[in-house]
Amino acid sequence: MKVKKINHVGIVVRDIEDALAVYRDALGLELTRVEERPDRGVKIAFLPAGDSDIELVQPTTEDGGVAAFLKKRRGGLHHICLEVEDIEAALTELREKGFNLIDEQPRQGPHGERVAFIHPKSTRGVLIELYELSES
Amino acid sequence: MKVKKINHVGIVVRDIEDALAVYRDALGLELTRVEERPDRGVKIAFLPAGDSDIELVQPTTEDGGVAAFLKKRRGGLHHICLEVEDIEAALTELREKGFNLIDEQPRQGPHGERVAFIHPKSTRGVLIELYELSES
Repeated sequence: MKVKKINHVGIVVRDIEDALAVYRDALGLELTRVEERPDRGVKIAFLPAGDSDIELVQPTTEDGGVAAFLKKRRGGLHHICLEVEDIEAALTELREKGFNLIDEQPRQGPHGERVAFIHPKSTRGVLIELYELSES
Repeated sequence: MKVKKINHVGIVVRDIEDALAVYRDALGLELTRVEERPDRGVKIAFLPAGDSDIELVQPTTEDGGVAAFLKKRRGGLHHICLEVEDIEAALTELREKGFNLIDEQPRQGPHGERVAFIHPKSTRGVLIELYELSES
């Protein structure tokens, strides 16, 4: 598998507006956009830091993994997303190595990307998202 | 404050050799070096991913924050390190804004860098390290 870079780090927050007081106003990161993602039960604020993004992820439903994480941990570092060259090949390789995949097949994202999550059980405790931006 | 990039993401692991089966052998990241840091009670494996590093941090003592994190969470995402242009100015700004700083003054690192940690209480639950590489 070939990792190109850290695409983003996902931070779960109770309230994006509140968290922007830290990440935008104090740390000085630029907020480029906020996206509603009803398919995942979240909204996401994107703040670039160099060649990666910091994503503030706020649950918008009571169920789902992000809401559960917020309830259990009261927010914080949630996942890391690695951009790969070939997500199909990456998943095949991980499957052959016995990794526990949350997504057996890549899910289509809203901006031409395909993503898949690896379960923390297989990564020594880290929720890892793989990401491939398809040529369009 | 001006953030230049994500310098690294720190992942706490019980055993670096064991974790390399995931991060090097399965995810394909390159291991560039492992450093002993007795001043912090850890050893650290560095695996570049694009313009940032993934750091695997293994406690080497029974006390300290990293050992406590491992005991409580059994490892996982621990901190994010942001490279800034001027760490002194950044800390002054954060202090004026009432942030809880773990390091009131930057600590000197072994490679010409100066670093300081911000307490998760002030960042909505994320341990954030600031990093400035000094001109030599």
